[in-house]
Formats: sequence, C-alpha cells, structure tokens
Amino acid sequence: MTDNPGNLLVVSAHAGDFVWRAGGAIALAASRGERVTVVCLSFGERGESARAWREGRSLTEIKAIRREEAENAAAALGAEVRFLDLGDYPLPETPEVVDQLVRVHRELAPTTVLTHALADPYNGDHPAAARMALQARVLAQAVGYDAPGEPLGAPPVFLFEPHQPEQCEFRPDVLLDITGVFDRKRAAMECLPAQRHMWDYYTDLATRRGVQLRRNAGPNLGLPHDTRAEAYVRLYPQVTGVLA
Amino acid sequence: MTDNPGNLLVVSAHAGDFVWRAGGAIALAASRGERVTVVCLSFGERGESARAWREGRSLTEIKAIRREEAENAAAALGAEVRFLDLGDYPLPETPEVVDQLVRVHRELAPTTVLTHALADPYNGDHPAAARMALQARVLAQAVGYDAPGEPLGAPPVFLFEPHQPEQCEFRPDVLLDITGVFDRKRAAMECLPAQRHMWDYYTDLATRRGVQLRRNAGPNLGLPHDTRAEAYVRLYPQVTGVLA
Amino acid sequence: MTDNPGNLLVVSAHAGDFVWRAGGAIALAASRGERVTVVCLSFGERGESARAWREGRSLTEIKAIRREEAENAAAALGAEVRFLDLGDYPLPETPEVVDQLVRVHRELAPTTVLTHALADPYNGDHPAAARMALQARVLAQAVGYDAPGEPLGAPPVFLFEPHQPEQCEFRPDVLLDITGVFDRKRAAMECLPAQRHMWDYYTDLATRRGVQLRRNAGPNLGLPHDTRAEAYVRLYPQVTGVLA
Amino acid sequence: MTDNPGNLLVVSAHAGDFVWRAGGAIALAASRGERVTVVCLSFGERGESARAWREGRSLTEIKAIRREEAENAAAALGAEVRFLDLGDYPLPETPEVVDQLVRVHRELAPTTVLTHALADPYNGDHPAAARMALQARVLAQAVGYDAPGEPLGAPPVFLFEPHQPEQCEFRPDVLLDITGVFDRKRAAMECLPAQRHMWDYYTDLATRRGVQLRRNAGPNLGLPHDTRAEAYVRLYPQVTGVLA
Amino acid sequence: MTDNPGNLLVVSAHAGDFVWRAGGAIALAASRGERVTVVCLSFGERGESARAWREGRSLTEIKAIRREEAENAAAALGAEVRFLDLGDYPLPETPEVVDQLVRVHRELAPTTVLTHALADPYNGDHPAAARMALQARVLAQAVGYDAPGEPLGAPPVFLFEPHQPEQCEFRPDVLLDITGVFDRKRAAMECLPAQRHMWDYYTDLATRRGVQLRRNAGPNLGLPHDTRAEAYVRLYPQVTGVLA
Amino acid sequence: MTDNPGNLLVVSAHAGDFVWRAGGAIALAASRGERVTVVCLSFGERGESARAWREGRSLTEIKAIRREEAENAAAALGAEVRFLDLGDYPLPETPEVVDQLVRVHRELAPTTVLTHALADPYNGDHPAAARMALQARVLAQAVGYDAPGEPLGAPPVFLFEPHQPEQCEFRPDVLLDITGVFDRKRAAMECLPAQRHMWDYYTDLATRRGVQLRRNAGPNLGLPHDTRAEAYVRLYPQVTGVLA
Repeated sequence: MTDNPGNLLVVSAHAGDFVWRAGGAIALAASRGERVTVVCLSFGERGESARAWREGRSLTEIKAIRREEAENAAAALGAEVRFLDLGDYPLPETPEVVDQLVRVHRELAPTTVLTHALADPYNGDHPAAARMALQARVLAQAVGYDAPGEPLGAPPVFLFEPHQPEQCEFRPDVLLDITGVFDRKRAAMECLPAQRHMWDYYTDLATRRGVQLRRNAGPNLGLPHDTRAEAYVRLYPQVTGVLA
Repeated sequence: MTDNPGNLLVVSAHAGDFVWRAGGAIALAASRGERVTVVCLSFGERGESARAWREGRSLTEIKAIRREEAENAAAALGAEVRFLDLGDYPLPETPEVVDQLVRVHRELAPTTVLTHALADPYNGDHPAAARMALQARVLAQAVGYDAPGEPLGAPPVFLFEPHQPEQCEFRPDVLLDITGVFDRKRAAMECLPAQRHMWDYYTDLATRRGVQLRRNAGPNLGLPHDTRAEAYVRLYPQVTGVLA
Repeated sequence: MTDNPGNLLVVSAHAGDFVWRAGGAIALAASRGERVTVVCLSFGERGESARAWREGRSLTEIKAIRREEAENAAAALGAEVRFLDLGDYPLPETPEVVDQLVRVHRELAPTTVLTHALADPYNGDHPAAARMALQARVLAQAVGYDAPGEPLGAPPVFLFEPHQPEQCEFRPDVLLDITGVFDRKRAAMECLPAQRHMWDYYTDLATRRGVQLRRNAGPNLGLPHDTRAEAYVRLYPQVTGVLA
Repeated sequence: MTDNPGNLLVVSAHAGDFVWRAGGAIALAASRGERVTVVCLSFGERGESARAWREGRSLTEIKAIRREEAENAAAALGAEVRFLDLGDYPLPETPEVVDQLVRVHRELAPTTVLTHALADPYNGDHPAAARMALQARVLAQAVGYDAPGEPLGAPPVFLFEPHQPEQCEFRPDVLLDITGVFDRKRAAMECLPAQRHMWDYYTDLATRRGVQLRRNAGPNLGLPHDTRAEAYVRLYPQVTGVLA
Repeated sequence: MTDNPGNLLVVSAHAGDFVWRAGGAIALAASRGERVTVVCLSFGERGESARAWREGRSLTEIKAIRREEAENAAAALGAEVRFLDLGDYPLPETPEVVDQLVRVHRELAPTTVLTHALADPYNGDHPAAARMALQARVLAQAVGYDAPGEPLGAPPVFLFEPHQPEQCEFRPDVLLDITGVFDRKRAAMECLPAQRHMWDYYTDLATRRGVQLRRNAGPNLGLPHDTRAEAYVRLYPQVTGVLA
Repeated sequence: MTDNPGNLLVVSAHAGDFVWRAGGAIALAASRGERVTVVCLSFGERGESARAWREGRSLTEIKAIRREEAENAAAALGAEVRFLDLGDYPLPETPEVVDQLVRVHRELAPTTVLTHALADPYNGDHPAAARMALQARVLAQAVGYDAPGEPLGAPPVFLFEPHQPEQCEFRPDVLLDITGVFDRKRAAMECLPAQRHMWDYYTDLATRRGVQLRRNAGPNLGLPHDTRAEAYVRLYPQVTGVLA
C-alpha cells in the first residue's frame, strides 16, 4: 500500500527476547535494507539471568553482560539496539515509560512494530511491555500529544511467539519464511552463551513452524524441506489490495 | 510466494451472495487478469426471493429470473458463474454435494477460495455452504481421493462478510481496497433489481469499511476520502516473506 | 414493541425437560393468558428413564408413563403438550424432523420460542433439539418455504438452563422472576415421581437464581427473600425502546 | 421491575463521545422526562481535536471550544453535562478519579448507566473510562464506602458502540429504537462542526442498526423503513418478569 | 510427582472468602497433615460488612470483629491465618503489596496455591487479589528477585468459585470431593454469624457441586448420595504420570 | 477415586494417529498392566497414504500395508488394535457408526477414553471421529440404550494433540510424563516407515512438551533434562480428592 522504505521497531521486555522470538524478522528486514531498531525495556537482569545469579555475579555485572550480549546479537542481525534500563521482575508499567515509548515512535516513525503477546501467565513483564508499546503507538498518532516529531501513521503490529504459545492465547495469524536468514538468527542466538540450551530449542521451533508454513502454503510450491519460519499474531486488520 | 497467475474460486450459497459480499474482490481479481469462477449452490429461490413469491411467480420462473440476474452480475464483474441448483432453505448438506465441490476444486485448481462465514444464526444455508466448501478443499488435497485432476495445493481461504457481522462472530482480518473497481460492483448490484434496497445498503457498507481501511492504513498515506473496502476473515495463517 | 397477545412455543428434547428448565416461564405466560405449546420431540424413553428400565418396564410402557407424566405436568403449568415421538438417545436430526417443526412454527406463529442450549457434552439430544428448532424457526420465516400458513416473524429465542451450565457455555443473559408461579412449577415437578430427587434440586436452583436476581436487580428494590428465578440465554439481540 | 422514575448516567471519556454513541438513548430518556447526566472525563483536547491543533489553537482554546460544543449538544438532547477535566491521551486511571465517580453515583443514584466498551485497540481512553465507571458503580453499592449519600442499588449497565465494533469484541445485545428522537440526535451532532464528516457517518450507522432492528423484530411488525437504532452491549443479566 | 509434604497457601481478598469458597480444600489438606496458611489481604471491612455498618459500628470495631471471626473459622478448618490489613473497596493493587506476597511465597514455599478467579464484574477486589497473588508467585520463582529465601518451584494454582460463576467466566476444571470434611466447613461457616444467610446457601452449593461430581465420576462408583464438593479452575496445565 | 484396574480405549480416525499422538499414554498404561484397546475407524488409506498412492499401489494394497504397520505399532506399545474399515477422506459420520462405537464401549467398559480434538481445519476426519466417540460414550451410559452389556460409567476423556495445535483450539490441560516409555513410542513410530519424516518431528515435539512439563512442574523437582511429554486436553472436570 506504500512506497516508503520499511522501518522496523521491536519493543522487547528483556535483552534476549528479540533474538529468540523475532530474530528472523529482524534479519529479513535488515537484509532488505530497512532500518531496524530494537528497544529493550530492561536487561532481564533479575528474571532471566538465573545462571549468572547462581554464579554469584552482582547486579551491575549482570546488566553489563546482558548488554554486551544483546549488542552482539543485534549486530549479527543487522539491527540497532537501545536499552531503557527500567528494571525487570517486575517491569514497571507507568505513564512515564509510556511517554518514553511515544517519543521513540515519534522519532523513528516505524512502518511495522513488533512486540510481545498480550497474555503470558508465566511472565508478567512480557504483556506489560506489550501493553505499553501498544498504548504508546496509539498516543503517538495524536497530533495533540505533546512530544517532538510528526504524528505517527498506523503501522501494523505483530506479536511474537511466547514460550508456551497455547497457554498465552497465541494463535498464529502469520507464518514468516525466514529460511534465507536463518543462519543469521542462529549466529545471533550464539551470542547468548548463558542460554546455550535455547539454541537448539529455538532451532527446532523454527523447523516446526517451517513445516507448518509448507503445510499452509501448499505442497506444490517447491518450498525446501528445511524451510524455517517464525509465527506471529497480527493485531489489526491487514490492509491490502489483493487477497492471497 | 508464487508466480502462478491467480485463479479465484467463490462458493456462494445463493445466486446473489457473491455480488453483495465479494463483488469487489471478484472485480479486482478479474481486472488483474485472473480467472474467476463463482459456484452458486442454489438460486436462493425459496429463501431470498420474497418479492417474487409475493408477486405470484412459480418456482421455475423464480429460478430462471435469479439465474439470469446472477449471470448478468457475474458478467459485470468479469467472472464465470455456475449453478449447482441444489435447492435452498435448507441447502442440502450431503457427501454427494461435497464430492461435486471436490471435483470443482480439482478442475479449477484455485489459488484463492472465498466463501461464507462459518456461523450465521439468521441463515443456515450460509454456514452449510462454507462447511461443504472447506471440506471439499481439504479432500481435494489428498492424492488418494478418487476424482479427476491433480491434488490441490493449499489455497488461502477468505470468508466474506455476513449481513449482521457481530452476530456471526465475524471479526475482519483483512480490509480489501476496492476503490478502483467499486463502479463495477455497483453495476453488478444493479443487475439485481428485486433487491434495489440493498444497492445503497452495500454502498454504505463499502464506505464504512473504507473509513476503517483508512484508519488502519494510517492517515498519512494519502488514500482518498471515498475509499471503498470489503472485509474478510482469513481462515488459515498467512504465509509470507514480509511483515507488513 | 407489539400489541399481539403472547404465544409461547417450547421445544423440548425429552418429555421432562420443559418442567425442570422452563416450568416457571411457562406458568408465567399461561398466568398472563398466553397460549403455551410444548413440543416434546421424544419421551426420553431411553436416556432419561433409568429407573423404569431397572424395574423391567417395556419400551411401550415407559413411553406411556412418560407421556402421562408430561401431560399432567403441562396441565399443572397451563400448557398444551404435543409429542413427536421421534425416539431418543440419539434423537434423530434429519430434514424431515426440521420440516415438521417448520410446520409447527407456521401453525402456531409463536411470539417467543424456548429451547435447549446449543452445547451439552453430557447429552447430545439437547443441542440436537436446539439446532433443529432454530433452523425451523428461520425456515418458517421464508415466504418461499413450502408449508401451510403465513411466514413467521422473528420471535425472540431463549435457551433454558442445562444441568451443568458452565460446561455448556451457558452464561445467563436473563434472570426471570418466577416467584409468583413457583408453586405451580413445584406442582408440575411433582407430576414426575420417578425423578423425585430432582424436586429439591430444582427448587434449590430456583432459590440460587433468585439470590442472583436480587443481586442484579439491586438490594433496594424490596424483592422478597424467597425470590425464585430461572436463567436464560437470549440468542438474538433484544429489540426495545427503553434501556433498563 | 420498578416504579422509580428513570435517571440516566452517561460516563464519557471525551467531550464528543456521548453524542455519536448514545445520543439516541439520551434523547429518548429525556423525552420520557428522565433526568440525564453526562459526565465527560476529559474534553478530548489532545486525542480528538486534530483539526484544532492543525489550525494552531492553544490547549486552553481547544478545551473551551470542546466544552461549548458539548454543552450545546447536551442541551439539544435534553441532558445536563459535567466536565471532570482530567486530561486525555492518556486519560489518567487512578483511585482518585474512581472516588470522584463513586461520589457522582452516590449523588445521582442512577437507574441506568451507559459507558464505553471494555476493549478498544484504537483508543485506550475508552476502556479506561469504562473500567473506572464500572468500578465506581460497584464501590458506590457498599454501605461501608466512605462517601456521602445512600448506597447505590444495582443499576443495569449498557456499553455503547465503538468506532470499529468487531475489533472491540462488541457484539450487540440490545438494539434501541431511536427513530422518534433521531432528529434530536442529528441536531446534537451538528453542534460539533469540527467533525462534520461524522454527521453522515453516524446517520448511516443509525440506518444500518435500524435495518438490523427490523430484522430482529420480525418483518411483520410494521416498523417504518427509516427505522433508526443504536446498538448496546448489556453487561449484567437482565432482570425481568417477561421473556420477550 | 513429588514426595514433599503438601503445603497450601490461600490468598483471600477479604476475611471471609476463604471459608465460603475453599473451606473444604483447606480442611482436606489440614486433615492430611499439611500446613495451610491463609493470607487475608483485607478484613472486608467496607465491602462485606454491610450489617455491621448498618448497626453503627466503627471501622476499628468492624475490623476487630472480622479478624476474630476469621481466626475462629481458620482454627475450625485447621489453618493458620494472617492479615495484611491493606484496606478494601478498593483493595490497593501496588508493587509494594506484590512484594509482600513474594516474601510470603518465599517464606512458605507452598506446593499448592489457591486464590480468586481472574474476572468478577461484581467485585473488583477479587480479581485484584488474584492478579497480585499470581504475579507474586511468578516473581518468587526468579533467583534474581531480591527477597529472602530460596526461589519458589512452580506450585499449581487453583481458582476458587465466585458467587456468580457464569458471569465470571468460571468453568470448573476440578471437582474436589469434600464429603469427609464437610462438617468442618459447616462449623467454619458458623463462625461468621453476620452472614448467617450464607450458611445454607453454601451448603446447597456443596450439594449441587456434589451432584455434578457424582455425574462426572460415573454412577457406578458407589459415591454416597450426600457427596459434597467444591469447584475449582486449574490455571496451569496439570503435570502427571497417569491420565485419569 | 477407584480401585478398578485401568482400561484404556483409544478411538483413532486413521491407522497411524494413535502412534504419533498418544503412543506414550498407551505405552504407560500398558506398562502398568492395563488393558489398552485402539479402535481405528479407517486405515487412513486415502488421506494419509500419499506416498503409497504416488508409488502406484492399489487401494487394497494400501489398506493391507496400513493394517500391518498399525498392528506392529500397537504391539510395540502393548495394545490391542481393531479396525472398523469405514473409509476415510471423508470418514462417514452416521448413526450406524456411532452404534458400533456404543457397543465397543459397552464391551470394553473403559476407565479412560482418548480421542481426537474437536476442531481441525486441516483434517475433517479427526473431529468427526471425536464427535462419534463422544456421542457413543454418552449413549453407552444410558441403561435404556439397546446394546449388550452394562451401562457405562463416566470415564474421563482426553483429547490428543493435533498437528497444528493452535489452529485447532488445542490448549493443553495435561502434560503427561512419558520419559520412561519414550523408547517404546519411538519403536512404535519406526513401525511406520512411510512416514519416516515424522519420527524426528514427533521426537522433537515430545522434547518440547517435556520442557514445558518441567517448567510447569517446577525447576526444583529434579526431573531429568531429557524429560519427554505428551499434551492432552481434558474434556470433563477432573474428579479428585486432592488439589495438586
């Protein structure tokens, strides 16, 4: 519907989420020459760094480690990364954070937004991040909202896959073919050595979603057997000129 | 995901449904040079011809009138139309009808399928048509199904808008921009003179869905004020290489 | 919205259902002078007559007993009762039965229709009866449907309470105050001696729904402590001139 | 269920909402001689005044304009209007605002409450207003809540129609016939000149809901072709003595 | 799946909730020798003490009365009870309260957690208590959360039955046989004299759920006619080695 | 709740389904000494034998191959297998088939029943099989149903995992630990050489569900890293004496 170059914004609760859940989408956009910006609301320093705590690291050390890992992973995917360092477990959900995110939207003017699913009974930070990202996107559209920049358009929003999708009311609307960039996603995952057990887990998931992609695309299309995919929920109706 | 030329199949319970509900999609596909085939399972002779009955027409006359009107409307949209003449109110839902529809799928090898929503507490023929169309599409995919032709791929399915969408659990996933072909849809509607009160009703609906399309596309895209749209539900996950 | 005298039709799968589930609504309508007709699709001879089977009664005997009990209960409530004697467990769900029910609708021209809930994982006959009643009501509205009588209007439909409401997706939309006719409902229940254990069960349920009615009506309205109620789901939107 | 004269409370997030969404219900109640009070939590100065911002008006000017327009519209409908001036985009959701609303409920003792739907992915202020209104209504019922006045009863609550109903899980439970007061609703809409494009949009919507009202009321009732309606969701079970 | 002795934590919004809704589960656990701790977030002093307010008691008096009653009821069930005295109507929902609850989880290391349902349109304190209890349980699992004690495991969570279950989206997943301890539950209820009308109401409910338990267990199992039960929703998937 | 030895009945639409979806549950039950009976309604000869059709096998040959494979797999799991040979794609859904299944229930008197999920937009035979199995289980409970044997109790029903669970509204209620028998499940899978690509797919799925099982059981329980699991939906409320 538009000739604008794409501009992808990813709002991630913790420093690693964007890699496991949206690494393929990020790498795809970057490979097309789009600008990609990842905003990590926290480092995941309390809730997703169990090993480091057990090893006796300090809070400061853990945050530094997580920052460096996330920067490496973002670089591997071709994305810029920013850290709001808001703290996690729980992630604070306040008007001030929402205002920060409005300003990010106004500054970047994304054409697509990715964030977490709106339900997750295993991790309250994920839906909190999603709620704030979505509220910010709406506020940024209002010409009367007092923040620098032009009012935002209405970029489509996609929610990425939580760890236990069925328990999070996550029913995929979109299967994204990431076969061509899966190597980059794997490389980004390997930038997170503390979670080595996740490398194969999310590789298997990409395979599983790839099998489903081929099933939904039709067996006759000649897609390769090692097709890899990521699953997304689309939050707003798709606007299109072609039913396909 | 494919270079195949499109090939659209529309399964319609009654002779008029495809005009009001999917006329824009049909005209769009035809205008791109795609083959479009409408299969009307019945003429709507009992359930949707109140005026003719009140005027004392016979069943044979009514079916002939409805056939001619539907042929004219299909021609105005650029589509071929077929009539299975199964009877309506109620539309029979049998294995034999499903088998007929499997053969249609095998013959035409559609790349996109449109049909009714799966719930309609005001009209049982609509979900019956949808159930049979969907079952036929799945059966046509099986190499072991005994019917001529090659096994079908997995064409995406879109459900078109019922008369009272909220009562039919119809939550639009896709807003299709039909501005460029709306004149053809209006012309097709005017091929159905017995339902003249519907012409404006569905013109207003196209306007309403157009307002929503503009709202979801973003106000900055320069879409015209008289944008017209049709709403659809997508039944299977979208397979794509780009999140947009 | 209308000055027509009311005319209530109750479609019941088995001979006893209308008593436990809608006895209050029936007695209320009858006490206002409305015509009330109960159509029992079966006698419940196989699925709801365990005691009689254990006592060694024959099928013929059981049907006769159930008929007499239901006639007595209907009389106690002020209703006419008809038996289609279609058999139960399973109740046959066929176009022929639907046609019989269309003719009932055309003949009686009900202004309100009561039937079972659309889901019941404990009793397949109940939703089968509901599906057929609802389909018949829609077909009877079509002027082109070939059956005697005038086309039906669009009488509102209420679904009565199943035995395990939460497992049947039964979320009450309406709480009907049956306090003034509860004695009649109790008398009708006592016409069914084989199910004596149900008398208190459904009396307690009426109390429970009565507590909820008072809770939803507001504590200040002076409703008596022994308010009795029945719960219903409304299937179509309410048409009204007052929000209350 | 009651002889009390009606007393309608409408809780509206922004200064214009009550006109588009509930103008008919307000005019109907006023025309029956009920007291109607509209509480506007904000003026909609930031989120719903795009034209004024583009024209370079100041915040103070915009709020004054919106106040005057809303006062005029309320007068046209026969209602009193109050402004809490809490700010919008985002509307603050705090215990203090809820307490203000409890005091409004205690003061006015409404017999019916209207507010926004509980979901709206396009406008976070709407569900925030609804959540606060609903919480206040419950708190006002508690004798122990420390605010002037008598404990509230349990007035029924109706949610009015959002702009994109299907995306807001809005499935109408009630279709309200506003034909007799539609002229007043149109006059009230015309008190909002900055949103002139909405006048026809909401006139068309009233027509569309009117068609549905006639469909659900039955075609035989003699309702006029230009029947106008508003759609509502009923939040609590209806308490009644008649199933109709 | 474990040999640990059970350790039950019940998080209750008001001082009486645990008796009506979970008294049977508490007595059962205590009778098996498990430690049971009830945490009452408030005394229910404003929202659930109507009679005392009407009798002119002061806030301090009411809290003292409610405390004593709850202590007596807990003793009758075999449980310890704690009071956080946070105030009710509304119950404050803050990070500080959640932190208090994290510390309770870390201290007690429960093997099962009971709390309120997540929706209740009649009582906002109930879902607020549930949200905080559930968030605390998740936070207490994180090794990096700064509170004394070991990280929590993942104890199963059960939601107890609200007053109007269908309006609270409460669909029972578990029917708990409390026949053997029902006398203790009744004795605990009788420790709450201000709510004497609830004694029979919740006795009847136990009977009703008992009938359902027998229905779901199968009629052949020899369960007594006076079986009593409580209903629960299970929030996370059951982990088991046997399907039964 | 019972001392009866277990007796497991598995109703499978096609000859292979029980292996992929419930092989672990079957092997677990058999390893505990329970009788396990698998009823295959068809061989999956048309819909799930693509390779054989492409190799030019006849219908008779394919059915023989599938029968032998299923017998081998059942033997590897410790189960008896029966074939009703009803045909597939589509599986006929008739009263006669239901009656056959009633007789199976009466004969075997299962204490647990496993079957397919009730929705599957990719495979209509699966929900058809489930509907018939569930109807048969209910009918078999009625003393008045005319079939040999005693009335059935109310065995719990578990639905096994479809291929694309989220698209089938499959939200796991139970995670079954099959670690101890996974070797047998793998051996049974290897009895189906035509579907060699599924061996690893379902091994990966067992790993994935195992990770989730460990997550839901709590990290402190010492479950091994290679825990394997199967996911199930429980159809009726669990009846129990312990919340755990």
